[in-house]
Amino acid sequence: MAAIYTEPHQVTYYEGDTKNQMTLAMLLNVAILVSERQNDQLGLTNEVVHGYNVGWVVTQYQIEIERMPQVDETVIFGTTATGYNKYFCYRDYWVEDATGKRLVTIHSSWVLMSYETRSMVSVIPALVQPYAAPEIKGIKHFPRVHHVDTVNAEQQEYRVRYYDIDANHHVNNVHYFDWMFDHLGMAYLSNHDLVRVNIRYEHELTAGDIASSHYQLDGLTSQHLINNTAGKCAEAEVVWQEHEQLN
Amino acid sequence: MAAIYTEPHQVTYYEGDTKNQMTLAMLLNVAILVSERQNDQLGLTNEVVHGYNVGWVVTQYQIEIERMPQVDETVIFGTTATGYNKYFCYRDYWVEDATGKRLVTIHSSWVLMSYETRSMVSVIPALVQPYAAPEIKGIKHFPRVHHVDTVNAEQQEYRVRYYDIDANHHVNNVHYFDWMFDHLGMAYLSNHDLVRVNIRYEHELTAGDIASSHYQLDGLTSQHLINNTAGKCAEAEVVWQEHEQLN
Repeated sequence: MAAIYTEPHQVTYYEGDTKNQMTLAMLLNVAILVSERQNDQLGLTNEVVHGYNVGWVVTQYQIEIERMPQVDETVIFGTTATGYNKYFCYRDYWVEDATGKRLVTIHSSWVLMSYETRSMVSVIPALVQPYAAPEIKGIKHFPRVHHVDTVNAEQQEYRVRYYDIDANHHVNNVHYFDWMFDHLGMAYLSNHDLVRVNIRYEHELTAGDIASSHYQLDGLTSQHLINNTAGKCAEAEVVWQEHEQLN
Repeated sequence: MAAIYTEPHQVTYYEGDTKNQMTLAMLLNVAILVSERQNDQLGLTNEVVHGYNVGWVVTQYQIEIERMPQVDETVIFGTTATGYNKYFCYRDYWVEDATGKRLVTIHSSWVLMSYETRSMVSVIPALVQPYAAPEIKGIKHFPRVHHVDTVNAEQQEYRVRYYDIDANHHVNNVHYFDWMFDHLGMAYLSNHDLVRVNIRYEHELTAGDIASSHYQLDGLTSQHLINNTAGKCAEAEVVWQEHEQLN
């Protein structure tokens, strides 16, 4: 039985958007924090992982949203490793309200990146066994992310700023959501809520880079692409619904 | 004796910068959160304040930094109201390490803004008396913020993004620091630490606005100005020192 870790979190005003909802970027920040707390609890601190000259890199998130946590609401974040194969490790996150009702579910896929070669290495047993998740055959398939037709897409540029880079010296990859969603505009974002988000990360952006954000909107589904001069950085497919005002 | 409120806070990875220090923006976010908690404790919730058709608006921060909290460090945030006159309310914030050593001190000045007229109104006794701070004669003077010579200053534009606006439907004014400091560039920010920050807020930016960021750097002192087509939004004067690596 894989280890489960949970922790309560009260949503602060600065984690909220104009709809009084926690932003997706902050929700993922807290989710990752909760899995770091589990890592520490299991003795897999960042120092231990870095001792192997590798780091964990997320490749995909599949996010299903019943509703986003509200500002001031106390919710429970949980996480567990769900399995691994030769290269990929799978982890789920969830957010529940105070009554145990599921608000958000996140499936994710991770790989180990060598600091030396900057490329993926196969899973290191000592870094996965403490989670007690099963070794699985084959690869878990995430929903397809349809490509943006860049010729017809809306495009806007975002410069990667100093404060987009965190203590790990990388662009915190939740900022991709800011660049993807901001582009839809105030009116759209104020009047629509997230239902599903599938995002695939390809290449990292660094400070000073220009992130070029492209999107296409078809009904309540949007496709997004962030690229830079070196190529594709991330692609996402998002399903929206009309915003529902809660009390 | 004015009421004091304190609360511990463990600095998370996403509140940190490339130097493993809490960013000034996040430090102020948590400081304001702590004073909101005091407001709630004293029965002065946002709902009560909004019931008078007014809101608190910060006009100045004077910030003295011994060192910034580090990622993973647990520090204590504290706040107390220090006095008020006909129009201004003064509040201090501080951050201490686990041994009680003072890391950061913030003096601040606030006014009540009418939602109806969008201008300053005189202090409402019911909204200040619960803090038990003294009524004072005259105005507290904050250090002078020297003006930027805009003719010779460096200039860069920052578009106000959807996620710069918080649940209060205003641009969270900590973002002014991002626009001011990012402009100094990665090399400068990686190699310098904050010593003192004096900022004066004049006019609010709104979503879609272009914030024009200007600065001049003279030795280890920088002057900053954010303006838009309607005029001056904020001015700041900052003292830096060479970055010292902590263990």
